[in-house]
Amino acid sequence: MKKVAIIMGSDSDLPVVSPAIQQLKELGIETQVRVMSAHRTPEAAHDFSKSAKENGFGVIIAAAGMAAHLGGVLAASTTLPVIGIPCSGKVLDGMDALLSTVMMPPGIPVATVGVNAAKNAALLAAEILALSDEALSEKLDAMRKEMAAQVAEKDAALQEKLKER
Amino acid sequence: MKKVAIIMGSDSDLPVVSPAIQQLKELGIETQVRVMSAHRTPEAAHDFSKSAKENGFGVIIAAAGMAAHLGGVLAASTTLPVIGIPCSGKVLDGMDALLSTVMMPPGIPVATVGVNAAKNAALLAAEILALSDEALSEKLDAMRKEMAAQVAEKDAALQEKLKER
Amino acid sequence: MKKVAIIMGSDSDLPVVSPAIQQLKELGIETQVRVMSAHRTPEAAHDFSKSAKENGFGVIIAAAGMAAHLGGVLAASTTLPVIGIPCSGKVLDGMDALLSTVMMPPGIPVATVGVNAAKNAALLAAEILALSDEALSEKLDAMRKEMAAQVAEKDAALQEKLKER
Amino acid sequence: MKKVAIIMGSDSDLPVVSPAIQQLKELGIETQVRVMSAHRTPEAAHDFSKSAKENGFGVIIAAAGMAAHLGGVLAASTTLPVIGIPCSGKVLDGMDALLSTVMMPPGIPVATVGVNAAKNAALLAAEILALSDEALSEKLDAMRKEMAAQVAEKDAALQEKLKER
Amino acid sequence: MKKVAIIMGSDSDLPVVSPAIQQLKELGIETQVRVMSAHRTPEAAHDFSKSAKENGFGVIIAAAGMAAHLGGVLAASTTLPVIGIPCSGKVLDGMDALLSTVMMPPGIPVATVGVNAAKNAALLAAEILALSDEALSEKLDAMRKEMAAQVAEKDAALQEKLKER
Amino acid sequence: MKKVAIIMGSDSDLPVVSPAIQQLKELGIETQVRVMSAHRTPEAAHDFSKSAKENGFGVIIAAAGMAAHLGGVLAASTTLPVIGIPCSGKVLDGMDALLSTVMMPPGIPVATVGVNAAKNAALLAAEILALSDEALSEKLDAMRKEMAAQVAEKDAALQEKLKER
Amino acid sequence: MKKVAIIMGSDSDLPVVSPAIQQLKELGIETQVRVMSAHRTPEAAHDFSKSAKENGFGVIIAAAGMAAHLGGVLAASTTLPVIGIPCSGKVLDGMDALLSTVMMPPGIPVATVGVNAAKNAALLAAEILALSDEALSEKLDAMRKEMAAQVAEKDAALQEKLKER
Amino acid sequence: MKKVAIIMGSDSDLPVVSPAIQQLKELGIETQVRVMSAHRTPEAAHDFSKSAKENGFGVIIAAAGMAAHLGGVLAASTTLPVIGIPCSGKVLDGMDALLSTVMMPPGIPVATVGVNAAKNAALLAAEILALSDEALSEKLDAMRKEMAAQVAEKDAALQEKLKER
Repeated sequence: MKKVAIIMGSDSDLPVVSPAIQQLKELGIETQVRVMSAHRTPEAAHDFSKSAKENGFGVIIAAAGMAAHLGGVLAASTTLPVIGIPCSGKVLDGMDALLSTVMMPPGIPVATVGVNAAKNAALLAAEILALSDEALSEKLDAMRKEMAAQVAEKDAALQEKLKER
Repeated sequence: MKKVAIIMGSDSDLPVVSPAIQQLKELGIETQVRVMSAHRTPEAAHDFSKSAKENGFGVIIAAAGMAAHLGGVLAASTTLPVIGIPCSGKVLDGMDALLSTVMMPPGIPVATVGVNAAKNAALLAAEILALSDEALSEKLDAMRKEMAAQVAEKDAALQEKLKER
Repeated sequence: MKKVAIIMGSDSDLPVVSPAIQQLKELGIETQVRVMSAHRTPEAAHDFSKSAKENGFGVIIAAAGMAAHLGGVLAASTTLPVIGIPCSGKVLDGMDALLSTVMMPPGIPVATVGVNAAKNAALLAAEILALSDEALSEKLDAMRKEMAAQVAEKDAALQEKLKER
Repeated sequence: MKKVAIIMGSDSDLPVVSPAIQQLKELGIETQVRVMSAHRTPEAAHDFSKSAKENGFGVIIAAAGMAAHLGGVLAASTTLPVIGIPCSGKVLDGMDALLSTVMMPPGIPVATVGVNAAKNAALLAAEILALSDEALSEKLDAMRKEMAAQVAEKDAALQEKLKER
Repeated sequence: MKKVAIIMGSDSDLPVVSPAIQQLKELGIETQVRVMSAHRTPEAAHDFSKSAKENGFGVIIAAAGMAAHLGGVLAASTTLPVIGIPCSGKVLDGMDALLSTVMMPPGIPVATVGVNAAKNAALLAAEILALSDEALSEKLDAMRKEMAAQVAEKDAALQEKLKER
Repeated sequence: MKKVAIIMGSDSDLPVVSPAIQQLKELGIETQVRVMSAHRTPEAAHDFSKSAKENGFGVIIAAAGMAAHLGGVLAASTTLPVIGIPCSGKVLDGMDALLSTVMMPPGIPVATVGVNAAKNAALLAAEILALSDEALSEKLDAMRKEMAAQVAEKDAALQEKLKER
Repeated sequence: MKKVAIIMGSDSDLPVVSPAIQQLKELGIETQVRVMSAHRTPEAAHDFSKSAKENGFGVIIAAAGMAAHLGGVLAASTTLPVIGIPCSGKVLDGMDALLSTVMMPPGIPVATVGVNAAKNAALLAAEILALSDEALSEKLDAMRKEMAAQVAEKDAALQEKLKER
Repeated sequence: MKKVAIIMGSDSDLPVVSPAIQQLKELGIETQVRVMSAHRTPEAAHDFSKSAKENGFGVIIAAAGMAAHLGGVLAASTTLPVIGIPCSGKVLDGMDALLSTVMMPPGIPVATVGVNAAKNAALLAAEILALSDEALSEKLDAMRKEMAAQVAEKDAALQEKLKER
């Protein structure tokens, strides 16, 4: 199976990105996690992205905040699907990162998930890889059933809790 | 090769969606274009999405405006990758559709592209399918080179134009 | 009297929703409080909504955050009035939930109250039920008088407090 | 059956409000349409609202733009359900009217629909009245089926249209 | 000299409003501070405003949050200048209150100051009253000089502080 | 009676400002209309403002767009009340001008009216001057009655119009 | 004197950028105008920027819309000052481009001017070059005087115009 | 070498501004740090700016919050490059300061950096001065290399950290 790269613009983004690492691990998907910056190490980012396909990657996840160019920079150098996680910073609640990530010009898409939504980025990557991996596809379907079951359990637990009030 | 479904919430979204249809056609990807509404025909949307995988679809593109739930509704019933195109309406410049599409809760991702960015939705779908289709992958790489060449041509044309001033 | 359903997208919304539960209880309105998710348990939500009328419900209150589709999903499967409470999340101050709840397409209204405004959702539900329940109507009128009296008391208390300064 | 009042802040709001008048007429609901201003004729608004219940109204719809206080002013003087339509003006795309209408303080709800969403206001009013009018309830259910059928027809028409391309 | 009324929508606004009370006191302007709600006690607000002029008031300051109608409601019943202080709430950073206060329709102005800017509301009231009170005008001019001197002092103190670094 | 100065940042603001000129003329208030720029002629603006009081002005109205500093610059050099009209430009719908005008730091208020709300700026100026001019005060009260009568007339006209439908 | 590069992301940005070209020409500053895209020709952009200094450039102006990465991409490869012009697109009024341009991470500044503010970008470039070019500095000072004179002329013309009314 | 002035609107802005002071010191650039207010000491600001060039300054950095006019006021009185740092306040996350700083009218540019981005303001000032100071230019180039190396180090450290998990 192809690997997933998780690139973060700064190592301070690790707490945001961790659920993605964890989720991919749970799904048995091999990941490589890297710190690379669209602005401070643009050539490294470019080189990584350009050779990602031949290095066995199937999807690249980019997490960055502020004027979040990382997803766009990586997407510019590959035709692998690139998933962008806009990270919220100290001001503007991630709106800057969201617009910088999602409003890409025609020709170079970045598949954007919600602000700080690392888990969803991982699941989207898995959904993409599952197109050619039936076992993974079944795991994802099972996860959905488990999620539904958890909601039902929480609903049941709530009924108990409210009765006690 | 797997097919791409393009679902629009209303047939009035066709002008926005057309570039996606055209782009996928140019890339030789089979598409099915449907009008289905998250709110007016939720069961049809649900049924379509639930059976999309077994019906040979690899990616679903959902285009909707306002409180754009279509992407989320479709994503809730499949583990295929769902791409959301937020469409701008008469007010709010698509910000309502963007937030309604991208800010999905953990567990159910929608791969969101820019407001009205149908061409990018198509290219993202193609990038996803290209993971298991080397010919398509090469087409996408070629498109990138062509885009770069077009920019260079426009740059050259601009030099001529400015000289004449 | 008809019952009020309070559906929350996640049990973590309970602190936001509690004032609605409390308010309806004080007014003697029977409620059923449920956890159901537009995205994780769409079929359960659909089934609940579809059979809500025959199960004796008169109003459905839906509380959800982020791309808050719950109100819309429930409204799509019933012609009972559906009241939406947009819940604020960790970013964007509830603007995402507000727009996702209120900007419904023509045909499927969601009666939206303010961000996190659970008490108002309960009162709106009560106002609706009071149309065919004169005793409830009188309770609501009495509450208004009490509210006005409380403001007058606080005004009087403020005069005392400011004198002492 | 109880009547619906449609109050607009200015007669210039009539084009926005007209779909609500038309929709209620089609549903056979008696309406009274009035021009009253929260700021220019506050006493008239207050008096109308205060006596609305005894005058046979079941729901009040308020349409206003800018710092849209009309819904709030009417809601302050009645415990009938008040539905607010935020109207967009020349600037700010209705965001001013939306926030002024929906963000009501605890105790005085306004059931807010989308910006300029007059048809949905009418349908919400009808849903409320239908709680004690089975015939109206059936009409609303029928409308939903018709809407679904229209979407299906448009879907079919689109298939034809795309074939011809 | 005419008095200044400070009306707050809820006694919880007192911490925001206190700098206005303090500022007016320092300037020797008589104030009356009241709790009155546009929505919970609309008649009291209306009556206060209607009789404010004959009761010796020259300016009314209104402080309210959320869908802040208080300034508009008071302004609707008087031709005295009404100053609005938009108060920030738990969400939306006061943008709701700002737009609800400032975007008044033609005919009924509310002189709006910044979010939570109670001191500026007081100073604006004083500037208005100073038009017919030369002693107050001189106090305001003196305050400006003092403010300028304080900035110069802070500038000097900063020079010392930075030298020590 | 004191005069009102209307300062606009650019002569292109005249169409926005004209209703203020007209309104003040109708009320018999002497005005001086000037073009002065906070950025292009800061000294002229400063000098005008500094000497405005001794030149017989009672209120200054400042109309400017974009990073609208004009109100703040004028307010910095006088303790006369300064009214700010934020003007909308080609982008951002006047939100830039609104925030630049209203969010003044403590000590220097600008009485802000709505975006492009020139008529309200004039009326606010008149309300301020009317504090020491009973005849003007009566004119303003009469205007309010006329406004109310106009709303009532429009309401009556609407009844006729709707009957004919 | 050093040259100024004006890079636009697409030749469709030429109408926005033209005032900058014209302004620099009038000031006698040599410019090179290029079409280069952060996403479609990232290597060309990188190469241009990397060699800009040795090629005699002193300032780079970057004009781009949507998720406007061009300024950031160019700034990442040079320590020459880079000026960013955020261009408005069909939706969101340039807010996307503004945030994408200005919210750069620590270490890589982009000197951002207003949305579509090409003339100001040119003047800022000129101010930078004027630091080591006294003749240019004098031209800029003269322009300022001329601007002030124009405002005064427009003010005088307005006086005439208003008299005639 | 020319000096850099750092002007802050209030001494409470010092924590935001400190990284700029530190950064310029590290680069060996002489700075003068001042507290001056666009509104409380406009004449001092004007005088400083007007004589800045002859006093040996090459760049002025202005840091202010809310309706942040300081950059504009300083820019109005000099043709030196003025860099604006929009500072976030208690509400609105710096959006008010950003728009007040960046949306300058044609003719008077302010080079705006991100909200609270003092370090970038310092680096931009250094880049400007480096145009005529090769040693400084080399320092900046070296800093970039060091930044890139730090990212690479953090990337390496992350690899170690993740292995240990």
